[in-house]
Amino acid sequence: MDIEQEIEIIKRGAVDLISENELRDKLKKAKSEKRPLRIKLGLDPTAPDLHLGHTVVLQKLKQFQDLGHTAIFLIGDFTGMIGDPTGRIEARPALTKEELLQNAETYKEQVFKILDPDKTEIRFNSEWMESMSAADMIRLCAKYTMARIMEREDFKNRYTNNLPISIHEFLYPLVQGYDSVALKADVELGGHDQIFNLFVGRDLQKAYGQESQVLVTVPLLEGTDGVNKMSKSYGNYVGIDESPDIMFGKLMSISDELMLKYYVLLSDITMDAFKTLNDDLKNGKIHPRDAKVNFAKEMITRFHGGAEAEAACMNFEKIHREKEIPDDVEVVRLKKENDTVWIPKLLLDMGMVTSTSEGKRMIGQGGVSVAPIDAGSMIKITSESMAADKVDGEIFKVGKRKFKKVVFEDKQS
Amino acid sequence: MDIEQEIEIIKRGAVDLISENELRDKLKKAKSEKRPLRIKLGLDPTAPDLHLGHTVVLQKLKQFQDLGHTAIFLIGDFTGMIGDPTGRIEARPALTKEELLQNAETYKEQVFKILDPDKTEIRFNSEWMESMSAADMIRLCAKYTMARIMEREDFKNRYTNNLPISIHEFLYPLVQGYDSVALKADVELGGHDQIFNLFVGRDLQKAYGQESQVLVTVPLLEGTDGVNKMSKSYGNYVGIDESPDIMFGKLMSISDELMLKYYVLLSDITMDAFKTLNDDLKNGKIHPRDAKVNFAKEMITRFHGGAEAEAACMNFEKIHREKEIPDDVEVVRLKKENDTVWIPKLLLDMGMVTSTSEGKRMIGQGGVSVAPIDAGSMIKITSESMAADKVDGEIFKVGKRKFKKVVFEDKQS
Repeated sequence: MDIEQEIEIIKRGAVDLISENELRDKLKKAKSEKRPLRIKLGLDPTAPDLHLGHTVVLQKLKQFQDLGHTAIFLIGDFTGMIGDPTGRIEARPALTKEELLQNAETYKEQVFKILDPDKTEIRFNSEWMESMSAADMIRLCAKYTMARIMEREDFKNRYTNNLPISIHEFLYPLVQGYDSVALKADVELGGHDQIFNLFVGRDLQKAYGQESQVLVTVPLLEGTDGVNKMSKSYGNYVGIDESPDIMFGKLMSISDELMLKYYVLLSDITMDAFKTLNDDLKNGKIHPRDAKVNFAKEMITRFHGGAEAEAACMNFEKIHREKEIPDDVEVVRLKKENDTVWIPKLLLDMGMVTSTSEGKRMIGQGGVSVAPIDAGSMIKITSESMAADKVDGEIFKVGKRKFKKVVFEDKQS
Repeated sequence: MDIEQEIEIIKRGAVDLISENELRDKLKKAKSEKRPLRIKLGLDPTAPDLHLGHTVVLQKLKQFQDLGHTAIFLIGDFTGMIGDPTGRIEARPALTKEELLQNAETYKEQVFKILDPDKTEIRFNSEWMESMSAADMIRLCAKYTMARIMEREDFKNRYTNNLPISIHEFLYPLVQGYDSVALKADVELGGHDQIFNLFVGRDLQKAYGQESQVLVTVPLLEGTDGVNKMSKSYGNYVGIDESPDIMFGKLMSISDELMLKYYVLLSDITMDAFKTLNDDLKNGKIHPRDAKVNFAKEMITRFHGGAEAEAACMNFEKIHREKEIPDDVEVVRLKKENDTVWIPKLLLDMGMVTSTSEGKRMIGQGGVSVAPIDAGSMIKITSESMAADKVDGEIFKVGKRKFKKVVFEDKQS
């Protein structure tokens, strides 16, 4: 493959590429020296529970890997083991070595569904940071100015608003940047929101006499609602460990527009194939529903396997066809509160009725039904209470046209 | 001695005492536990060439020592060995261990003219800093906020004026503050301009669960001109290694007012004796000239010995009496440029004439004379050139009333 084609693949869906010329030079040099480029991706050492949003950058890393380069998966265990000694940043509790190793195992298990283990280096920054002395730390700090650090929005805002910043918080980005020096990274990947930290690595490599790494950032993935970034707290996520049926339902519920974004950022299809898909959608050669089915199958195949993807698709179609349910049923995620669910409250929480009295009235009038997979048609609900097990993952219908699917939190079947 | 008397001695000439109540508590506790307080004085690890300005804080340390407390002389060799890795701060070149040990020896030699070696601990901060890890450094930095560091005027000004501040510059005050933790200092001494750094030690001791040190600062000593702070670059200093004759001449040249300040900050006489001296000066019981002679003798005795002080005094009086020279002759310090001195230019540089032509004319008219110690009277200068050796340290007279003494730089006879 020629270098311009490689660059096109690397640019796919990326927000920043700093800079294209430097990337071109590195690719040329790598080719002439017959060595792969070293691609760094730094990860939080806390236990992962990955959703598709996290996999965007992994997908970018995989593209590099497919081009023959070396993926380096860097786990920031050094800072993880220190935690936040001020106790102010809640997201940074100190972790033990054992917890960190266990988190690393969980990571591997999940990310090797995307990456090729044989072409992936798993590294820990404690390898070089644990033996670093205070004197070396001071020397490292000498390579960076306060003005540059204060370009980071959160620092600037906190300083301007007189909110406390501990000095050690300045050291963490420097440690992360030094990781690029230690790893001799050619390219660093990250979310667009991490751009400042990636720049630190670039600057420090230069200060330590290395060639600066190229930066590639990817966008934050929107959740299934198409509004907010995908996040557990918004309930708009597709977890990579969720069951095939739930994944399928969620992915079928997204808008046509969002589907195209997901294709660019998550699918393995080539950009040429993507252009053809786009044309076919415009010409009506392919129905958006079928494009969504293909995409959902690709994701489920990636995380569960091909047979599971086919089965999920068949289940989905059976239920929806037999029971005349539309494909894009919204999935609502709720906390499971009891083993028995009071349906009028459930319908209220799902936003299908405006009060529990309306819910009670609708049940009394035979206007609420549910679609279990083993029944040939929708089943009318006659009782106001149901076992939580029977509710979880089911599609509810209220009146003639309102359909919503409920999933209880943390169900990983 | 009772505690209130101790406090009076400690307050003598001090600018800051933070706080008097804490000091009282510490003194009480020390007395009841029969242990001395630990008094820290941190020193720059560069080679010293001490003048009386430096000895003000040593004099304060000696007062503590005389009260039975432990003087700790801390040499900041750790940061000295790192230097300023950015190369921006010229005053901080990296020093080798050997250079540092040699500087420490030079210090000892000079300061033990004031301090009692047996009651002095000489310490190096590399003792605890060299073995400190980067992780410990991060933990140390977690104990201090950016807002607090930015209270330091120089940082604030540089940040406001967009002048670069390297992150490591924030770490140095923390290291210095941590020294107080490592030393378990009860009191830290310093110049008033060091107050910020002393506060860091106070804060860090608290953060590490220790009782905070008391801070005592002393003023910057004015030079013999009574205008600027004593400094080599202003030429208004009295070096502790200067010859007895030069010291005597310089100290006799100061104003009566400045003499009183010097007494408070540098003399060993008690505050009661000082009050009596003040009264005697007011009543005319003692002439200011004689008070100055006593002070000059005390200083020369301290740094050279009693016999040398008496001899210097006798030389001075002999010259001044025999040759009718006033006592308060200004001492002008000049760079020695050649082995031969062109007198018209010398007189211009000393500010005794307004042009070299005036100088030449005055010599021609027999209006310039010099006062060598081995001559019974002033000797008229008839030639426009003199050997530099014959010029150095001599008093010149121009016209009927202008007297000035010239000393060539770096002469340490």
